[in-house]
Amino acid sequence: MSAEKLSFEDFEPGRRFALGPKPVLAEEIIEFAQEFDPQPMHLDESAGRASILGGLAASGWHTSAMLMRMMADSYIVRALCEGAPGIDLMEWRKPVLAGDTLQGHSTVLEARQMRSRPGMGIVKFRHALENQRGEVVCLSENSVMIRMRLPPEGANMSSELPA
Amino acid sequence: MSAEKLSFEDFEPGRRFALGPKPVLAEEIIEFAQEFDPQPMHLDESAGRASILGGLAASGWHTSAMLMRMMADSYIVRALCEGAPGIDLMEWRKPVLAGDTLQGHSTVLEARQMRSRPGMGIVKFRHALENQRGEVVCLSENSVMIRMRLPPEGANMSSELPA
Repeated sequence: MSAEKLSFEDFEPGRRFALGPKPVLAEEIIEFAQEFDPQPMHLDESAGRASILGGLAASGWHTSAMLMRMMADSYIVRALCEGAPGIDLMEWRKPVLAGDTLQGHSTVLEARQMRSRPGMGIVKFRHALENQRGEVVCLSENSVMIRMRLPPEGANMSSELPA
Repeated sequence: MSAEKLSFEDFEPGRRFALGPKPVLAEEIIEFAQEFDPQPMHLDESAGRASILGGLAASGWHTSAMLMRMMADSYIVRALCEGAPGIDLMEWRKPVLAGDTLQGHSTVLEARQMRSRPGMGIVKFRHALENQRGEVVCLSENSVMIRMRLPPEGANMSSELPA
């Protein structure tokens, strides 16, 4: 089963993966905001229009979560992925409004083996999402731990996180 | 009404705001993962135990969203907040597991008026969340646009985002 999955070796610098399209629904914006970011411009159409965002706008943290879902659907779930240590860059460049459709690409920036964890590599991606007018709304970079197809001899899959 | 809210002037460098406590429930971890990050270690207890995370673990994007909610409850919703341009730093330092309780602080790092938008300031925060064992699980920095209490003469509240 693992043989069919994407491994570290498949993420060569320059390789691109399509993200989306993902239509952004008003009810999803409101539902996320109620749970995680209850500010008026994320909860109510008229409050959004009155704000500098110009309409019912997704929380940036919601846009980030939608980006993760697009990554998952494109390549993460079918890869030997072991999690991520964080986010290196996250720019919310334009408002994401109800009715927008997001799509974009993840591009492999670099890939290196982890010294602290034999058999595992770190792949750094750059992600860009555009709206239906071709405007970049979200630019991000993050690194993901992905297992190698053939761990080196003596590899020790311990259960601690890398330092 | 605005007079009761926190304005840019209230966010002096060094001021700290408490975050949490926030108990992390297994069903919340699974619900978020189903919508935004459907990887096995975020969906299933036994898959989490078999992973390097060591248990049913919240997606880092979920931890980030929980951080936003703690900020909202602590100071964002009662401030004249106009949104944020992104995240400057986001480190997921330790796994956040079902049953953990998160708490921490936001600290004001710097505050400056926006040249491009009279009457508005940018406040940069550092956020740290610990689990119930005092381990830092999440370290983050981001900047938030907050209106000034007394906009300067001739202030122009336009509806475009700053460049």
